[in-house]
Amino acid sequence: MTGLSTRIADMTWYEFADRVKDNPIVFLPTGSVEQHGPHLPLLTDVILPSALAEAVAAEVGGMVAPPVAYGYKSQPKSGGGNHFPGTLSLDANVFIALVRNIINELVRHGARNIVLFDGHMENAWFLVEAADLALRDQAMLGRTDVKIIKLGYWDFITKATEAILFPNGFPSWELEHAAVMETSLMLHIRPDLVRQDRIPDDPAADFPPYDVYPFDTRPIPPTGVLSSAKSASADKGRAVLAQVVPDIAAALSREFPSIRIL
Amino acid sequence: MTGLSTRIADMTWYEFADRVKDNPIVFLPTGSVEQHGPHLPLLTDVILPSALAEAVAAEVGGMVAPPVAYGYKSQPKSGGGNHFPGTLSLDANVFIALVRNIINELVRHGARNIVLFDGHMENAWFLVEAADLALRDQAMLGRTDVKIIKLGYWDFITKATEAILFPNGFPSWELEHAAVMETSLMLHIRPDLVRQDRIPDDPAADFPPYDVYPFDTRPIPPTGVLSSAKSASADKGRAVLAQVVPDIAAALSREFPSIRIL
Amino acid sequence: MTGLSTRIADMTWYEFADRVKDNPIVFLPTGSVEQHGPHLPLLTDVILPSALAEAVAAEVGGMVAPPVAYGYKSQPKSGGGNHFPGTLSLDANVFIALVRNIINELVRHGARNIVLFDGHMENAWFLVEAADLALRDQAMLGRTDVKIIKLGYWDFITKATEAILFPNGFPSWELEHAAVMETSLMLHIRPDLVRQDRIPDDPAADFPPYDVYPFDTRPIPPTGVLSSAKSASADKGRAVLAQVVPDIAAALSREFPSIRIL
Amino acid sequence: MTGLSTRIADMTWYEFADRVKDNPIVFLPTGSVEQHGPHLPLLTDVILPSALAEAVAAEVGGMVAPPVAYGYKSQPKSGGGNHFPGTLSLDANVFIALVRNIINELVRHGARNIVLFDGHMENAWFLVEAADLALRDQAMLGRTDVKIIKLGYWDFITKATEAILFPNGFPSWELEHAAVMETSLMLHIRPDLVRQDRIPDDPAADFPPYDVYPFDTRPIPPTGVLSSAKSASADKGRAVLAQVVPDIAAALSREFPSIRIL
Amino acid sequence: MTGLSTRIADMTWYEFADRVKDNPIVFLPTGSVEQHGPHLPLLTDVILPSALAEAVAAEVGGMVAPPVAYGYKSQPKSGGGNHFPGTLSLDANVFIALVRNIINELVRHGARNIVLFDGHMENAWFLVEAADLALRDQAMLGRTDVKIIKLGYWDFITKATEAILFPNGFPSWELEHAAVMETSLMLHIRPDLVRQDRIPDDPAADFPPYDVYPFDTRPIPPTGVLSSAKSASADKGRAVLAQVVPDIAAALSREFPSIRIL
Amino acid sequence: MTGLSTRIADMTWYEFADRVKDNPIVFLPTGSVEQHGPHLPLLTDVILPSALAEAVAAEVGGMVAPPVAYGYKSQPKSGGGNHFPGTLSLDANVFIALVRNIINELVRHGARNIVLFDGHMENAWFLVEAADLALRDQAMLGRTDVKIIKLGYWDFITKATEAILFPNGFPSWELEHAAVMETSLMLHIRPDLVRQDRIPDDPAADFPPYDVYPFDTRPIPPTGVLSSAKSASADKGRAVLAQVVPDIAAALSREFPSIRIL
Repeated sequence: MTGLSTRIADMTWYEFADRVKDNPIVFLPTGSVEQHGPHLPLLTDVILPSALAEAVAAEVGGMVAPPVAYGYKSQPKSGGGNHFPGTLSLDANVFIALVRNIINELVRHGARNIVLFDGHMENAWFLVEAADLALRDQAMLGRTDVKIIKLGYWDFITKATEAILFPNGFPSWELEHAAVMETSLMLHIRPDLVRQDRIPDDPAADFPPYDVYPFDTRPIPPTGVLSSAKSASADKGRAVLAQVVPDIAAALSREFPSIRIL
Repeated sequence: MTGLSTRIADMTWYEFADRVKDNPIVFLPTGSVEQHGPHLPLLTDVILPSALAEAVAAEVGGMVAPPVAYGYKSQPKSGGGNHFPGTLSLDANVFIALVRNIINELVRHGARNIVLFDGHMENAWFLVEAADLALRDQAMLGRTDVKIIKLGYWDFITKATEAILFPNGFPSWELEHAAVMETSLMLHIRPDLVRQDRIPDDPAADFPPYDVYPFDTRPIPPTGVLSSAKSASADKGRAVLAQVVPDIAAALSREFPSIRIL
Repeated sequence: MTGLSTRIADMTWYEFADRVKDNPIVFLPTGSVEQHGPHLPLLTDVILPSALAEAVAAEVGGMVAPPVAYGYKSQPKSGGGNHFPGTLSLDANVFIALVRNIINELVRHGARNIVLFDGHMENAWFLVEAADLALRDQAMLGRTDVKIIKLGYWDFITKATEAILFPNGFPSWELEHAAVMETSLMLHIRPDLVRQDRIPDDPAADFPPYDVYPFDTRPIPPTGVLSSAKSASADKGRAVLAQVVPDIAAALSREFPSIRIL
Repeated sequence: MTGLSTRIADMTWYEFADRVKDNPIVFLPTGSVEQHGPHLPLLTDVILPSALAEAVAAEVGGMVAPPVAYGYKSQPKSGGGNHFPGTLSLDANVFIALVRNIINELVRHGARNIVLFDGHMENAWFLVEAADLALRDQAMLGRTDVKIIKLGYWDFITKATEAILFPNGFPSWELEHAAVMETSLMLHIRPDLVRQDRIPDDPAADFPPYDVYPFDTRPIPPTGVLSSAKSASADKGRAVLAQVVPDIAAALSREFPSIRIL
Repeated sequence: MTGLSTRIADMTWYEFADRVKDNPIVFLPTGSVEQHGPHLPLLTDVILPSALAEAVAAEVGGMVAPPVAYGYKSQPKSGGGNHFPGTLSLDANVFIALVRNIINELVRHGARNIVLFDGHMENAWFLVEAADLALRDQAMLGRTDVKIIKLGYWDFITKATEAILFPNGFPSWELEHAAVMETSLMLHIRPDLVRQDRIPDDPAADFPPYDVYPFDTRPIPPTGVLSSAKSASADKGRAVLAQVVPDIAAALSREFPSIRIL
Repeated sequence: MTGLSTRIADMTWYEFADRVKDNPIVFLPTGSVEQHGPHLPLLTDVILPSALAEAVAAEVGGMVAPPVAYGYKSQPKSGGGNHFPGTLSLDANVFIALVRNIINELVRHGARNIVLFDGHMENAWFLVEAADLALRDQAMLGRTDVKIIKLGYWDFITKATEAILFPNGFPSWELEHAAVMETSLMLHIRPDLVRQDRIPDDPAADFPPYDVYPFDTRPIPPTGVLSSAKSASADKGRAVLAQVVPDIAAALSREFPSIRIL
């Protein structure tokens, strides 16, 4: 029995009680069940932020709550779209209420330093609302010492790492859906779940500067991959991890001064 | 790449699309992040129904959706109570909305045979409501061919298996929280997560015939375990699995006649 | 003008104001408009808890609020099912919000000792949520001195009374829907509303260990009565009342120490 | 067993099923638990519309559902105000949801002609919304043959009856709270619940042409009675009933042409 | 840059911050996008209360928030009905939530004296609820020094002004929809938006003493104007303004003693 | 009476009815009451999309609904933050419900081509949800012929126009809050509302790659302006308008083929 130090899922309540007393950072990974092309599993957006959050938590002595596996509706420009088979998404009010509720529960048990660790771009604005409403709930209960940080791990990737990922030029994080970055991370973290013979080489998608509902599926690549994933590699994934994890850890230890990097 | 046949999480969208065409049973495990004594992890109520649902799905050619990891509030008489550290629970309206939303998403992608596979007794009545509301949503969209089954796996345990579990007499399923049955299943399925040296031997809890809010913690055993778990064993867990899985598979294949046991 | 001492409905506001100052127990009966076979009226689940709550209130100097007449959806295994004509049920969120709102109103006017006195088994878990949310509302308003007890009166029936009701063996409280116990109580309390010539003698219903939505009506007795009511009698009803009322009164006076049995 | 012909509460489900087949008018009385001065009980606004609805139902062969006993918040100008002890009111969204839910349930069991029979002025606009939303729900389910009438019984009082009630001049229906009309009806219908020695003789209240929140209690008579009830009598109550009941019955039989006056 | 003294819309945040420090009255005009006959624009119910609120604000040193332009559903007896083309209305819960949210935001920035200045009769009861819920929200946040006044400007019209408007006798404020008063005010305030050649001369509508859903359109004048607007004039509009504005200002300066008439 | 051709606000219901028959594009501008520095009014985000939508509508024969004036909460990185005085924002569920409701109302009156014309970046994802839910509502009512386009006008600005706006290099649209582009447009459209002597010259704000709640105000410029607005000019505003309006009109006429550019 070792190595159970970051996942709340694996702790007994005695261990949780013991840990929470030190006011650690508590991470809540948020993802989605979303198409990720012919080569990546539907749970990619949960697997990645969970793995990254656990790695960061290990550095800062934090705890990771069970991830929010279902997320907001996939959009054509950032995820291919909600119509792809197997993409199981939540209405905004359900997702907001779920995250708000979990934050409030963490606070109830003593957490004061909370990080919403997102792996699904479409969640971002609804996480903002969940954080804001949870802070209001706490204010109504008389608690004003809670601090919440919301992040998407890709926003920490430096120009140098971008150059490793995209030696031929960076498309955009939005078009990166199921493409080089996510595929590389999966090849590093969960290669058993990557269908390597099916990694697509789609040209970058080209969308108009507006959104159409119901979706106009014509500009969406049939694979659901928004730009080529061909150049992905486990090495690139390792490089991302090696840069992003300590950088997030460093940023969080600045934001939560009571935390020191282990 | 083998053995990805039941977990939607691990499928690509191509695989999901391929599978859902045959109108399989789709299982949604529902659990909770809940104290389970000094010996079992907080995610016990998610681990067990997920494992059992996957085993049943393997028999009936079904698919298992990512579990609902957060559940309804733990109660003293069935789970020790929501106040135990690390017990992260949802308000009823959040849990109902979440399950209803996932059911509707499964139906949107073609599922018509849905099983809510519960691992947390407190979820039961809110699953009833989620099922009822999802069917109403579907009726409003003009679909009336959806069938939902809701079950708690323990309700399938036969008298014979009860006798194996409890040679000295059966307490009650409600007092079985974190006790012989759950501990035995965990010892069989995820022994790495059981703190075997900390299995408690609490006497059966004794509650009055009513409920008090805020909780009256006096009748609750300090460990959160409602009856002795001492006699748990991996063998007993294996015996439960060996009986319950085929029995649930058989029942479901009767209820969904288009399904045949593999 | 006598005997108006327990029903809030019958009080003037002056009388209510006078009574609430002594911090009495305030009872809220909750029931349902639900089929009760060919012999009992649709309001049975409101009539019984109202009568019992008034009897208990008379013993403990309490007050009884107007009952919540509409309840949660009847289920096959405990009430025959929501599809029976005349069964008028509420969605979970409506029922929860209604009870939560009434609790908050009682507290606003000074009540601190509240008993949710249930007459409809399907309400139970939604009453849990209503109580929990009302306590949270009060905490947000700065009040933490409210105590709520939730009970189903049948849970107070002793083994001795069971033996009177079922000399040939007890089925289960769930199958007791519209059967010996409820029919006996109605014969004692409101015999004018019992169609004595239509008391059915259905065999006990036999349900599978799971639930099907939409309902599978095949295992449900056509009368909606889940076991035989034939042996019901006003004497049995009187016996139940004679045991249950003082026992509930005694339990409540222990729980609310400021209350003394009159 | 006679005279159970109008109250759904008293019917068995067999009787309800039998009756609803003829497409009768179904009445839903809506009231409030609200202060009514030192002489009338808190349930006055439920007792009166229930009694009147039953009388009208008897004339048109209709059925009366169990009343909605809790209503919208009492206002100073029409009910004295929500702050009076014992006034137990619902938030708008709870009241709307409750009435909408009951309408939908009546329609589910076959009712198509529904009358919201109000006894509490503050409910009026929320009944409008409940009716509108229920009709939308039904449209979503494909049903467009439901007709709902909403009425306040006092709006049917003719000038001639006004002259009987107020030989010295009519104040206004709003100031009539707990005054001559309501007291007279109670003296006729439930004299046992009227404290005749406490009927007040307050001068008519005088309010400014706007509303203040939190309430400005200065213009509210301390008794909560908005104009003198002194001249109330059972005879006046009988006169109101004798005029209003057949007039409402006549109006409804014109609106629901399939109904004939019995 | 002058004259920006009352409209929050036109202020910079520096100006707002400067103004709110003096604890001024903050007005929130509420209206509707609603048919107003063949001669008045759909925004009439927003234009009028905005203009009047600005005039009052100028007298009491107040500020006017951007109006709530969408309101509650038009009803036949007060607005012709929601079915008239271009009538864009909100569900009750949306309107209530919107106004409640804006009140809370005003309070968050320091406002304590708030006036809901209504121009659409159908909004009235939902404004009551918004005010009540906002005050509860504030109480949960620990603030109890907020005062809200809700008014319909027409309720301030004196008998003398009525005589100017209706030399031949006053119909009723409800039938005044798009008729003499509103048309006169528009002729005074925004004559460019009045189609003067299309002012109708409908006879006063005659409705039964109940409401029918879906609407019975037969008693509704085809123009949507509930009584003749023929005698409207800019002079009458000016007379209304000249009386109502100072009277509202005077009333508010009594209610908010810290305010003095400028 | 001329020129009333695009604003629904100014139309009578006769005119609306006449226009909607031709199935025009109906625009709904959405904005916010949000700080825009020391030089721009709080309603900037409403004024700009309203003006632009009207200009586009004039080209495509469309109609413009009254704008949604209150929007989602201002964020530090895109709007300075919700804490700036006068910033009046809506909770996500209120904003979503409001826009969803208005879309449904437009559809009820015959609109099928709807454009959500946003002027406040923070609204974007909540508009996505409003559109999705409204389409679901319509599907439940049996209507599947509604098409909704959501756009932020700044996304149509071409590289060439960017070069005019920012001869020294483009910062980012997010940092453009109250800066060159918005100030230039206001100088062109509503110069009377611009405090030209107070146009700030803040350096571009520099934010970390994550978000902190409650806001960390340190990286936010004290003026609330996220980059220098100094080089703004009415000419630049005219240039933006001259490019963006016809481009949006052209895009929409492609998307709604029944529309032709006038």
